[in-house]
Amino acid sequence: MESSFTSAGLIGRHDDTRVIPIIERISAYLHKHRIETILEQSTAELMPGHKMKTGSRHAIGEHCDLAIVVGGDGTLLDAARTLSDYEVPLVGIHLGRLGFLADITPDVLDKCISSIIEGDFIEDRRFLLRAKIERDGEQIGASDAFNDVVVHKWNVARMIELELFINGSFVSSERSDGLIVATPTGSTAYALSGGGPIVHPALMALVIVPICPHTLSHRPIVIEADSRIEIAICDSNRDQVQATCDGQISFGLQSNDRIVITRKRRFARLIHPAGHDYFEILRRKLRWSTNL
Amino acid sequence: MESSFTSAGLIGRHDDTRVIPIIERISAYLHKHRIETILEQSTAELMPGHKMKTGSRHAIGEHCDLAIVVGGDGTLLDAARTLSDYEVPLVGIHLGRLGFLADITPDVLDKCISSIIEGDFIEDRRFLLRAKIERDGEQIGASDAFNDVVVHKWNVARMIELELFINGSFVSSERSDGLIVATPTGSTAYALSGGGPIVHPALMALVIVPICPHTLSHRPIVIEADSRIEIAICDSNRDQVQATCDGQISFGLQSNDRIVITRKRRFARLIHPAGHDYFEILRRKLRWSTNL
Amino acid sequence: MESSFTSAGLIGRHDDTRVIPIIERISAYLHKHRIETILEQSTAELMPGHKMKTGSRHAIGEHCDLAIVVGGDGTLLDAARTLSDYEVPLVGIHLGRLGFLADITPDVLDKCISSIIEGDFIEDRRFLLRAKIERDGEQIGASDAFNDVVVHKWNVARMIELELFINGSFVSSERSDGLIVATPTGSTAYALSGGGPIVHPALMALVIVPICPHTLSHRPIVIEADSRIEIAICDSNRDQVQATCDGQISFGLQSNDRIVITRKRRFARLIHPAGHDYFEILRRKLRWSTNL
Amino acid sequence: MESSFTSAGLIGRHDDTRVIPIIERISAYLHKHRIETILEQSTAELMPGHKMKTGSRHAIGEHCDLAIVVGGDGTLLDAARTLSDYEVPLVGIHLGRLGFLADITPDVLDKCISSIIEGDFIEDRRFLLRAKIERDGEQIGASDAFNDVVVHKWNVARMIELELFINGSFVSSERSDGLIVATPTGSTAYALSGGGPIVHPALMALVIVPICPHTLSHRPIVIEADSRIEIAICDSNRDQVQATCDGQISFGLQSNDRIVITRKRRFARLIHPAGHDYFEILRRKLRWSTNL
Repeated sequence: MESSFTSAGLIGRHDDTRVIPIIERISAYLHKHRIETILEQSTAELMPGHKMKTGSRHAIGEHCDLAIVVGGDGTLLDAARTLSDYEVPLVGIHLGRLGFLADITPDVLDKCISSIIEGDFIEDRRFLLRAKIERDGEQIGASDAFNDVVVHKWNVARMIELELFINGSFVSSERSDGLIVATPTGSTAYALSGGGPIVHPALMALVIVPICPHTLSHRPIVIEADSRIEIAICDSNRDQVQATCDGQISFGLQSNDRIVITRKRRFARLIHPAGHDYFEILRRKLRWSTNL
Repeated sequence: MESSFTSAGLIGRHDDTRVIPIIERISAYLHKHRIETILEQSTAELMPGHKMKTGSRHAIGEHCDLAIVVGGDGTLLDAARTLSDYEVPLVGIHLGRLGFLADITPDVLDKCISSIIEGDFIEDRRFLLRAKIERDGEQIGASDAFNDVVVHKWNVARMIELELFINGSFVSSERSDGLIVATPTGSTAYALSGGGPIVHPALMALVIVPICPHTLSHRPIVIEADSRIEIAICDSNRDQVQATCDGQISFGLQSNDRIVITRKRRFARLIHPAGHDYFEILRRKLRWSTNL
Repeated sequence: MESSFTSAGLIGRHDDTRVIPIIERISAYLHKHRIETILEQSTAELMPGHKMKTGSRHAIGEHCDLAIVVGGDGTLLDAARTLSDYEVPLVGIHLGRLGFLADITPDVLDKCISSIIEGDFIEDRRFLLRAKIERDGEQIGASDAFNDVVVHKWNVARMIELELFINGSFVSSERSDGLIVATPTGSTAYALSGGGPIVHPALMALVIVPICPHTLSHRPIVIEADSRIEIAICDSNRDQVQATCDGQISFGLQSNDRIVITRKRRFARLIHPAGHDYFEILRRKLRWSTNL
Repeated sequence: MESSFTSAGLIGRHDDTRVIPIIERISAYLHKHRIETILEQSTAELMPGHKMKTGSRHAIGEHCDLAIVVGGDGTLLDAARTLSDYEVPLVGIHLGRLGFLADITPDVLDKCISSIIEGDFIEDRRFLLRAKIERDGEQIGASDAFNDVVVHKWNVARMIELELFINGSFVSSERSDGLIVATPTGSTAYALSGGGPIVHPALMALVIVPICPHTLSHRPIVIEADSRIEIAICDSNRDQVQATCDGQISFGLQSNDRIVITRKRRFARLIHPAGHDYFEILRRKLRWSTNL
């Protein structure tokens, strides 16, 4: 049978040698099925003498019609931010326990990869966020986020003051430890720890979660994914606020900076083995099957 | 200037004489502007000698192109369930403080009504739910709900056991005091007390909130409004479960009954005075303007 | 070695035949160690031809210096309310998984019972509550509670209105589904589902938890165990409120009834196997050992 | 009538000239009643030409039998940490709205001060915490705290890992933004924003509140005030954790540092005007008097 894929990128978790045997297994399988592979450069450094073609993530984005990411949810988040620009489908292999995103564990690796290669899979489109930092009317920084954009206190024990606007309307003045703006994908990450709801990935919605709000009636708000969110840093905070995307990319902020958050047009395309069930993953990750 | 409306229904809160002077004021205004009025039958009983044409809510639905509801959010919920079938626009006058739905207070009544009659208003479409009760494969009851469908314990101090399905997929077994399925409109009502998020009314989404769940990791879930929700009453509960729509219409349930909840096709059309701002109402109702 | 106990009562879960082999094992062990046994009457009905002396719970309270309760936390709660009057030490055997109170599971039964009989145990004193219902100045009902006294809505889908007083001071008017007044023992039961904190059993404190409060800034309150709590049923509720002790004993309430809750003078004495660790039970019951 | 006090210290909020007229009013009143005053040194710098005797906080502690603190809750917290060593009674004047601690507002200042001077007041003893930082077995820092000791992430967007021990028993491994250990006084401050309960000031208890815990079943825990709490910084965190007392005094922490928190033996003595009602302050601060 001929595969639906012709060229696959292989990306491993940064500096983690546990990815090596898994990448070797996948690589051998792909080679046997005449699917070209590109090993991501920094992963290649972990595997001297590997004999695979190597390339950057951008090269993988340009040349591959599949990317296989070995690590955990963090590795997949990181890869997805780059590869969503190319709309390359992503498969996530988890090194340990089941992840929300990297939902193939090593024990079912061979079966899952062969199903996917044979075309028996589910595609799950997830949207990303685009955060832009504005100072004095100019953009001074920008990043994509797959899980969340968090505006949070930094180098300070006291609360910070933020103002929240949605589609140009003032929503609230917040005194809190910060604000989380999460995609449905991110709703089961930090936003959940902060008291936010679970947002189903098929829903085109964002959730805004205040972190430890001073006003006890401040609650998470769920809005349309196509909303324009602006967060203004109030005058009272001096060099004590940061914006962080996916817990991985940070920007130092000053009083009167504004963070503008919109939906990215291009989607991340996650590939799941056939039979994938979002609620089953939820039950396993949140340990719902059992009661006290 | 000619009004965009030709005939208005007038509906007052059941058995509350405070509605009389307000309805008289509105009626006089409408009469002056040559807009026909139909006074709802049970409201008419409060106003002997009123000289207006009277009719049922269904008559108002069939003949009027506007319905003015005087009372509070509860009165509007009740009217909206009937009048959404006719897609008659609804204006809500609150007798006391500002309501989430009945957002015109007596002090600004004249100004708001004249703006609306002159065509200066905002229309806000809100979807409703349809709940059907099934027993042994047959439908034994049904109701619309504008805020929420709540499946809850009844006549019992202990928890009940429910099973939740979304679009045919099993989600969870719940041991709790019940489950709230709320529209965005209902997200600021009982669901908020139960720990659910605020869902913006423009978002086509539902929120499912467990009430006092035994499993501490059970959290509110937000899903697409077009989802089909099924709640199954487990075998262990005997005559101790009810389903209640908008806190107003209840059904006794038995073991193995199923409640099927879907979106109603027709929308309720709420009319707000020009300048209406959802977030301002939220701030006032939840007292966000001030901190501790 | 001589045992510290001379006479043990044996109490099984109501109508559950799974208790039979466990009671037989314990009874044989006690007989071998010359400890007299009294089998509780209703448990005896499950075991025709058992040949043990039988007696009521009160007889066990009067004659025994140990009571062994086989069932789960519910069975132990029930026994503790009666036996605390006699200050008889209680051992709880759980039929299934670990309980908060019944912390001996069948797999370690023999070892635990022999340790206890040999005097190698930890005693853990827990206080109980006394709830009295007053109507028109007269007491119309009363019950002890080991976990909690819950004043809750009944036969009604809407919220109820209560007034809370502590030591004669007005605390708050509550519109909610009810109020939970819990001992430290009850803090890990219903109160925890309602959002209350975990209260360590050594702390002489009560926690009051509002159930789904309408006012979002209503929060659980922790007060001294020797406080006098009064809950007044407001005029607006008609036959729609109940008070329930430990989820087992209920009283129908009317408008203007008052529930007065104080600490019972006598303690329940729980006996745990040596090495008992409250936090270990907490970790296992709340599944803290593992993360998402 | 002779006053129960002979010498009063006057302490104003740091660098806030709004305190001047209030201190002048109080000073004149005290002078008239022949009560000696000591103006705190840094407050004196705000009031050139004031003619009062000045002294440090320690001098106030040694020589005065009353300290009047003008500012807000933060100013009182700060003063209480020093003056509790001398067990000098503290009166708090709030510059703006009612505070939890500084519960005298300018509009009732004269009446309240004269009542207190005449001996018509309520004394309210509150305990404080003592936090010690240990590194490699040695104490490298220490501070008192009146509200709370918070161990929190610092300079990092990701969660931190802590281990919690109570009286030598392991309680839990925490992955979170941090842990709050609060007195009853602090239970209505940051701990409340983090989801903790209100703890009545008369209860000798501590509350431990996890901030945004990764494990959803981690909940606030209330324990005896005389407990010894140890928080160990896990190996995985590098220079990314701080301990902060009352949001005012911070210590940078390293992997393997331990924070040991115990109760301070000496109490802060708060003086309230006669008629002081804790629950009334709670209702006003948390806006309980009104519903949605």
